[in-house]
Amino acid sequence: MASNEPLDLDEVYAFASQLGKDAGKILDDGWRRRAQGGGQAEHVEKESAVDIVTQTDEDVEAFVKTKISKRFPSHHFIGEETYSKGSSKDYLIGDEPTWCVDPLDGTVNYIHIFPMFCVSIAFILNGEPVIGIINTPFMNHTFSACRGRGAWLNETQQLPLVRNPIPPLPETAPKGCVFACEWGKDRRDLADGNLQRKVESFVNMAAEIGGRDGKGGMVHGVRSLGSATLDLAYCAMGAVDIWWEGGCWEWDVAAGICLLKEAGGLVTTANPPEDPATARIDDAKLGGRLYLAIRPAGDSTRETGRQSQERTVREVWRRVRHLDYARPGA
Amino acid sequence: MASNEPLDLDEVYAFASQLGKDAGKILDDGWRRRAQGGGQAEHVEKESAVDIVTQTDEDVEAFVKTKISKRFPSHHFIGEETYSKGSSKDYLIGDEPTWCVDPLDGTVNYIHIFPMFCVSIAFILNGEPVIGIINTPFMNHTFSACRGRGAWLNETQQLPLVRNPIPPLPETAPKGCVFACEWGKDRRDLADGNLQRKVESFVNMAAEIGGRDGKGGMVHGVRSLGSATLDLAYCAMGAVDIWWEGGCWEWDVAAGICLLKEAGGLVTTANPPEDPATARIDDAKLGGRLYLAIRPAGDSTRETGRQSQERTVREVWRRVRHLDYARPGA
Repeated sequence: MASNEPLDLDEVYAFASQLGKDAGKILDDGWRRRAQGGGQAEHVEKESAVDIVTQTDEDVEAFVKTKISKRFPSHHFIGEETYSKGSSKDYLIGDEPTWCVDPLDGTVNYIHIFPMFCVSIAFILNGEPVIGIINTPFMNHTFSACRGRGAWLNETQQLPLVRNPIPPLPETAPKGCVFACEWGKDRRDLADGNLQRKVESFVNMAAEIGGRDGKGGMVHGVRSLGSATLDLAYCAMGAVDIWWEGGCWEWDVAAGICLLKEAGGLVTTANPPEDPATARIDDAKLGGRLYLAIRPAGDSTRETGRQSQERTVREVWRRVRHLDYARPGA
Repeated sequence: MASNEPLDLDEVYAFASQLGKDAGKILDDGWRRRAQGGGQAEHVEKESAVDIVTQTDEDVEAFVKTKISKRFPSHHFIGEETYSKGSSKDYLIGDEPTWCVDPLDGTVNYIHIFPMFCVSIAFILNGEPVIGIINTPFMNHTFSACRGRGAWLNETQQLPLVRNPIPPLPETAPKGCVFACEWGKDRRDLADGNLQRKVESFVNMAAEIGGRDGKGGMVHGVRSLGSATLDLAYCAMGAVDIWWEGGCWEWDVAAGICLLKEAGGLVTTANPPEDPATARIDDAKLGGRLYLAIRPAGDSTRETGRQSQERTVREVWRRVRHLDYARPGA
């Protein structure tokens, strides 16, 4: 396809869906081979013990990149593996058609054959993810979305799952909400480091109403899956009400953000503004490394779904700390 | 079957397996009906906003109880719903054949249609769980185990998944381990309450080596699924290396403990003894409400699998706080 040819989004969507299944199959074969062969995956240390990359990871990225470059030679490609081996992590997504791929999200999970691993494929136009495909081979779930065509589980069940009508956020949110969060890789024991700020925020969200000097949120449940992509996919399902995280990269979230937005969710920044009660709620920047996602919400008699989402954003911002994640050099 | 008739464990196992699938189907129908019908599940508050029981929960327990009493009229039955509605939570499991059932483990998950919910069925002889069946309808996974017959995923894949050979625990454990833990329902903001002790323990396990006054464990990942049963099932798979939790009841853990033990895992108490380095490592009491589970482990050149499990138990005990959970009146 020449670069000036008009883009048929349905064609790209069908291609991406099949690509997700084929890539998921490679991940599936990988863990089964390890299960038969015994032992842990061969792995090399990157930055720390928590940051391990497997051969399968690289194989899947090479497979996906080759397939895309054959079918759409003019498209740009950004993959987690090739990208993170480079010297910088500049934000490189512009207006041109770009594929942004995490061949294996939940690498730690994959090494341990903990079910929450997936391949995540996004197609981006004018800086916006317009197609998102997530395939979780261990659970045999495919999540897919394309701009204007809705978000789907296994191509048949539209998201969010509960949709006739879609429930509003609880009036008492974050009370009554499932809160997803991740411990991440930054485990430095600093007095006011990211780990301490995260934990302080988690405890605020979890503690009883009235506790923590009025910051207690009494969420219904706190969940940590070890996959940003699946946190977002479950948020699009409506299973996670609130996801709050810092430190991800664009390949971790591009497909999930597409999915969540097509389902009717909201994504803004994780870091609370100066005045959480009145600040404008802007869409999260794809490369901003800070994300607060709220599930799709329907209207109630008192407010629109969007109003209940924004109310929830402000209640989260009131309870969480500022995280210190930036792009290198930024 | 008369009570003095000899017990055919294979027959009971086959019956329990089918029962798990049938009960899982009711859970599956339940969430699908809610997805179609809209809105949240009808629910009534029990002890707090985090403790919600759905009608489906009671339906599944009634179904399971009826099936068991028809097939094995002399067997005892303890189910979460009937039990927790009573005035006391005395430990009632004796030497006689007893079924211990959680019709819906992960109730919060189920309300939100977060995938980690399941039915958990255990059959207990002489106080020991000898059959365990766990069915997770959203993910279509069945875990099953019977004394002397191994532990299985979907009846075809023996557990742990990696088994030729089964890997030993890492030499640096808990570093390199997946650590599963739950925030639970006790969210009181007390200076030294269970919530604070849990969080302190989680952070010790997560923080870098050398951090937290030498207690930093730098686990590979921290995971919270919201289901004790699935934490144990994933531990039997080998996906979770360490699960540490207080506050569960016997119906939450009976099937999972059977599964884990058949797979080769270890379960002892969550609460560290006075001298973690030398204390005897006894099996957890089924009704003890405090559990530390370690995945199946193979021998290495330096130590047996059991030795590496015990070494890991001691390293966890060194990093966790004493939790305050007892049976009412105990």
